[in-house]
Amino acid sequence: MIKVDLSGISGFVPVDAVRFKEGRDIVKNLREGEAGLEGTGWLRLPEEMSGGLLGSLRDTASQISGESDVLVVIGTGGSYLGARAAIELLRSPYYNGMRKSTPDIFFCGNSLSAAHLSRIVALIGTRPFSILYISKSGSTLEPSVAFRIMRALLVAKVGEQEAKSRIYTITDARSGRLRAITDREGYISFEIPADVGGRYSVLSPVGLLPILCAGIDAEEILRGARDALGSAADEAALYAAARQALYQKGYKIELLASFEPFFRYMGEWWKQLFGESEGKCGRGIFPAYADYTADLHSLGQYVQEGERALMETFVLFEKSGVQLLVPPAPGFGDGLDPVSGKPLSALNEAAAEATKAAHIEGGVPVIAITAPDMTPYSFGALVMFFELACAVSAIMMQVNPFNQPGVEAYKTTLKARLGL
Amino acid sequence: MIKVDLSGISGFVPVDAVRFKEGRDIVKNLREGEAGLEGTGWLRLPEEMSGGLLGSLRDTASQISGESDVLVVIGTGGSYLGARAAIELLRSPYYNGMRKSTPDIFFCGNSLSAAHLSRIVALIGTRPFSILYISKSGSTLEPSVAFRIMRALLVAKVGEQEAKSRIYTITDARSGRLRAITDREGYISFEIPADVGGRYSVLSPVGLLPILCAGIDAEEILRGARDALGSAADEAALYAAARQALYQKGYKIELLASFEPFFRYMGEWWKQLFGESEGKCGRGIFPAYADYTADLHSLGQYVQEGERALMETFVLFEKSGVQLLVPPAPGFGDGLDPVSGKPLSALNEAAAEATKAAHIEGGVPVIAITAPDMTPYSFGALVMFFELACAVSAIMMQVNPFNQPGVEAYKTTLKARLGL
Repeated sequence: MIKVDLSGISGFVPVDAVRFKEGRDIVKNLREGEAGLEGTGWLRLPEEMSGGLLGSLRDTASQISGESDVLVVIGTGGSYLGARAAIELLRSPYYNGMRKSTPDIFFCGNSLSAAHLSRIVALIGTRPFSILYISKSGSTLEPSVAFRIMRALLVAKVGEQEAKSRIYTITDARSGRLRAITDREGYISFEIPADVGGRYSVLSPVGLLPILCAGIDAEEILRGARDALGSAADEAALYAAARQALYQKGYKIELLASFEPFFRYMGEWWKQLFGESEGKCGRGIFPAYADYTADLHSLGQYVQEGERALMETFVLFEKSGVQLLVPPAPGFGDGLDPVSGKPLSALNEAAAEATKAAHIEGGVPVIAITAPDMTPYSFGALVMFFELACAVSAIMMQVNPFNQPGVEAYKTTLKARLGL
Repeated sequence: MIKVDLSGISGFVPVDAVRFKEGRDIVKNLREGEAGLEGTGWLRLPEEMSGGLLGSLRDTASQISGESDVLVVIGTGGSYLGARAAIELLRSPYYNGMRKSTPDIFFCGNSLSAAHLSRIVALIGTRPFSILYISKSGSTLEPSVAFRIMRALLVAKVGEQEAKSRIYTITDARSGRLRAITDREGYISFEIPADVGGRYSVLSPVGLLPILCAGIDAEEILRGARDALGSAADEAALYAAARQALYQKGYKIELLASFEPFFRYMGEWWKQLFGESEGKCGRGIFPAYADYTADLHSLGQYVQEGERALMETFVLFEKSGVQLLVPPAPGFGDGLDPVSGKPLSALNEAAAEATKAAHIEGGVPVIAITAPDMTPYSFGALVMFFELACAVSAIMMQVNPFNQPGVEAYKTTLKARLGL
């Protein structure tokens, strides 16, 4: 299960500044529905999603696989980051380039770039495609524009009637524009559970349907999340309390770092989760992500010697899953003979340890989170661990982890400018 | 040409805090070789690279295209970020998935992940491939391990002799392990110009050879860079002076944001350029990148209402290059009829303006940089503009923009651990 190691912060904050007990009490209140906050439905998703609903999602994923070579997923923020994170971690960032029995997946509706959307249209080309449109309201500009364009393309290709059977939506059960359109057009649709905000929705149909379309075992994800609710809850409280203690001492930027490139979109998902939950009322740790060891050769200089307001959190995996050895090349002159025959995972572990030591020496406190491996089970466990930790951390700094009043500011200004 | 608009910082710092004249003097000293610093060779690259050398690079790119379907580029930090940024901006992040006459390109040697490297090996499959190994010394662990693995694969495929003709290197002219290996094996090779550090090397063979392999017009890139040296130098000084003025006022994080998803790796390149140049002696603005409008639905909450230590820099394009209209769908109920028939570029521009207004209102100063378009010419201009601005900015905060002493800390520890 998930483990948190705080040995790398002991030189920076006293042990009693880490309010672990307070964190644990918050977890308890959240789980017993006594936190006095709306938006805690994500705690129930591992139970609620299993069984019949998961079966329906699996059937729909099969249907999409059967009818189309390409799935266009339209959504922004919490409506795409979790699914993309899962696909990149568990299948790889090269998913579309892989030989596979599941469709290519393109994510759009998260920008207003003509270059980006046109490129996706070109990549679809003449191949049969389906659309999955994910939006709670159906009123957000970027996804609704992308849907208009993609729907027009689909209708031009297969006609109005056939298009209706290739469009799937995930939206609010009762209200909003997308609910009305869905009911009128008769699209196959799933509900965004009430009481679950976008950034906490990856274990709902929002995340699970695209994940299933990519051929990933969603049941294992849910099992990992369920287990984490039990056995990683204390670790989540510990992580939350540690980062709060560091924040109080002036460490205002948290750099989440992984030594696995496939984790990068989990970093994006984590940035939304923490940034959107904590960044309010003039408070909040600024969330940044680093892709190690790559970024040790770039941002690494800043981490080692720049302004001392940084804390780092490493996400490590006990097992790398793939065995790859440094091949022998005696006398080749590349200086690698001492590591010849060693597995890359051993080198990567040594890199993580060396980085931790060097950064602590340079004045950066380092929290280390270890997950068992890069499997669907561990993905589910990490999701639940981070969601718990995020809610606890925000509550500890006295902000509401489940609202996002500031996101509306630009939307309101934009809609006024466009007469919408 | 590149334009810098400081209207969005006027409410945050007084005009006379922006030491533009000092910045302009630094540019002058740098260009006249009177800055008293080593590492300014990048200023001469636009001139030096044109002509014969560019022709040789072009011939080599043609040879690679002719012999292989896949090019594996091995390098880390400055040895890959610039080329990847160019390919993603000018061809698209979906380059490998596009139909094209140039080879697929995979970047590796920038991590020690077995999962990542194995995936690339699987993606190469049975296709013929070539290797381009970029390293000044040949002693950095990640690229040398990747080279061992990829070379072994190539030898297994085509034999020792044929492999030698499919391996290309870019390395130091005289010293280092890779120079020795290159000379002994007889690889086709180009030199990393003396006096050019990794993060300033994109306009040298380091960046230009992979860029040419992707079918991009490198001559236009160099023309843009040359023009920027003249007509964007003042703008670079202005940008540098503005961010320094904000830094002095306590804005310690700079969030570079673009409204074009294809710009994301330029953001990574920019993070290295500024982070590695400025982050030393306990000083430096922390560089972060945001992909708008996507990240407005995630990190946007933090930007609007979190800790007030953020400045933002927008990179905008006057022309989007691709025309895409919102198609008509009267009565469909998606609320978009007021923008029906409008080009996406107009919506994207409105989004940028709305975001700027909302963030300034929320207490974030916004610098706006505008480039003409997303062409090779503008890419070259932006590269030179940012390199100039970065050097000026670092000198203004009294750190050396051209060294990176802190990057060695983890390397030394790691090599000791592995007995290298």
